[in-house]
Amino acid sequence: MKIVHTVEDVRKAVQAWKADGKTIGLVPTMGYLHEGHKSLIDKAVSENDHVVVSVFVNPIQFAPTEDLESYPRDLEQDAKLCEAAGASLIFNPEPSDMYSPTFSSFIDMSTLTKGLCGKTRPIHFRGVCTVVGKLFNIVEPNKAYFGQKDAQQLAVIKHMVEDLNFNLEIVSCPIVREADGLAKSSRNTYLSADERKAALVLSQSLALAEKMISDGETDTSKLKEAMTAFIEKEPLAKIDYVEFVDWKTLEPVSEIDRPILNAIAVYIGKTRLIDNHIYE
Amino acid sequence: MKIVHTVEDVRKAVQAWKADGKTIGLVPTMGYLHEGHKSLIDKAVSENDHVVVSVFVNPIQFAPTEDLESYPRDLEQDAKLCEAAGASLIFNPEPSDMYSPTFSSFIDMSTLTKGLCGKTRPIHFRGVCTVVGKLFNIVEPNKAYFGQKDAQQLAVIKHMVEDLNFNLEIVSCPIVREADGLAKSSRNTYLSADERKAALVLSQSLALAEKMISDGETDTSKLKEAMTAFIEKEPLAKIDYVEFVDWKTLEPVSEIDRPILNAIAVYIGKTRLIDNHIYE
Repeated sequence: MKIVHTVEDVRKAVQAWKADGKTIGLVPTMGYLHEGHKSLIDKAVSENDHVVVSVFVNPIQFAPTEDLESYPRDLEQDAKLCEAAGASLIFNPEPSDMYSPTFSSFIDMSTLTKGLCGKTRPIHFRGVCTVVGKLFNIVEPNKAYFGQKDAQQLAVIKHMVEDLNFNLEIVSCPIVREADGLAKSSRNTYLSADERKAALVLSQSLALAEKMISDGETDTSKLKEAMTAFIEKEPLAKIDYVEFVDWKTLEPVSEIDRPILNAIAVYIGKTRLIDNHIYE
Repeated sequence: MKIVHTVEDVRKAVQAWKADGKTIGLVPTMGYLHEGHKSLIDKAVSENDHVVVSVFVNPIQFAPTEDLESYPRDLEQDAKLCEAAGASLIFNPEPSDMYSPTFSSFIDMSTLTKGLCGKTRPIHFRGVCTVVGKLFNIVEPNKAYFGQKDAQQLAVIKHMVEDLNFNLEIVSCPIVREADGLAKSSRNTYLSADERKAALVLSQSLALAEKMISDGETDTSKLKEAMTAFIEKEPLAKIDYVEFVDWKTLEPVSEIDRPILNAIAVYIGKTRLIDNHIYE
């Protein structure tokens, strides 16, 4: 496995593979890889001749108030995980190589990005779309892999690919959880021991809604009420949002009568965590 | 030569060529092709195994007040010109095939698009970048050809390709003019006989500046003054802008001391015409 830092070096590797008729899978990440990322890489390795893992903490998807500087990084550990999983290449660019001083072109979306995480993170998805579009153009993969953990991101990227005719397939992979239910996230590393326990309210509130729905509840206002009450019992938790939205348009729904995304964002102490469940 | 109307059919043709190791040139147009377009196609044919000409009057680059409906169209004539020039394929999509009812993803630029034509056409370049990005993703050409006539568009597309890492080369081609100097344009067809004569103020005012510069003038305010006075002598002409800008950043300059774009937009009657001269 190679680690390269420039667009030029990725292109060289990709060009050689394409000349041999090989297929390429791309797994875009911000590094500090965990079992969730590993499941994406495993899936990509099983479906492609070569897998490129990009490891890049993308500055333009962070607001000035957010955790760009403190976001955890460990390229050495990431490289071990990627190599063991069978990836062919890590692309780990410098921010200055991705964004020149005159950089000013953005991919943006007028739907799907305004609600859920977009409400508190208004520039986030513009940054995500732009960097993912760049990575698609740099790697030119046959397939790209995204986790369902970032459900809004997954919907946004699928929509972008459709709208802008990127010539590749988006593959989504299920959420990977700790034994007690907490969704794996690089940001879990921010949690103290008490916060780690409190963070269970995310998966548990989703499970509560799942139970109510399987018992016949279809009114999303009642479901939200129950989830909200459950989360608010935890003193370390502060709700950002609890939402039921159409899984294609991400517009809020009042009834469980179509494919639905139940998405939540909750601050545990200072750490903002997200989780979700999709009703197909 | 084939004429196809769907993204799927373009992809089929392109895939077959790529499998044979052939190179592809793309000439994006809005149709009603003239000698200017032909010079782009000729250049593309001379540099690639296959040439795709897209013929698409792109609705999202027109404001509601502009000439989307009346923009001239003649696919039969366009096909004759393309076939004679040696193109392999015309891509002539339906607007509904390019923009689904839920379309909402745009490529936009925070520099280069605000001045010159962007001043009176604020959504124009967002529409241009978006459709050109889509065409790049659909055709995946090795090279794409743009006329220097639309100088701001050329600068914007070059910048977009650099920023977003599109894997292709942009080739620019010089302005093609009528015998009397008028730059070829599909919109020239709107001009009455009197307006056709009056339209000469565009190329003549550029020539006036060229003469002054070759005589040693470097002060752009004096050059603009002379050009403005010259154009204003023509009763049918109404200036939109007369500008001297840096040919890379498109920022206004006060001295001719670097590569400069002298760009103008002038209404002749109701028809808005543009022309320019580049000092390399």
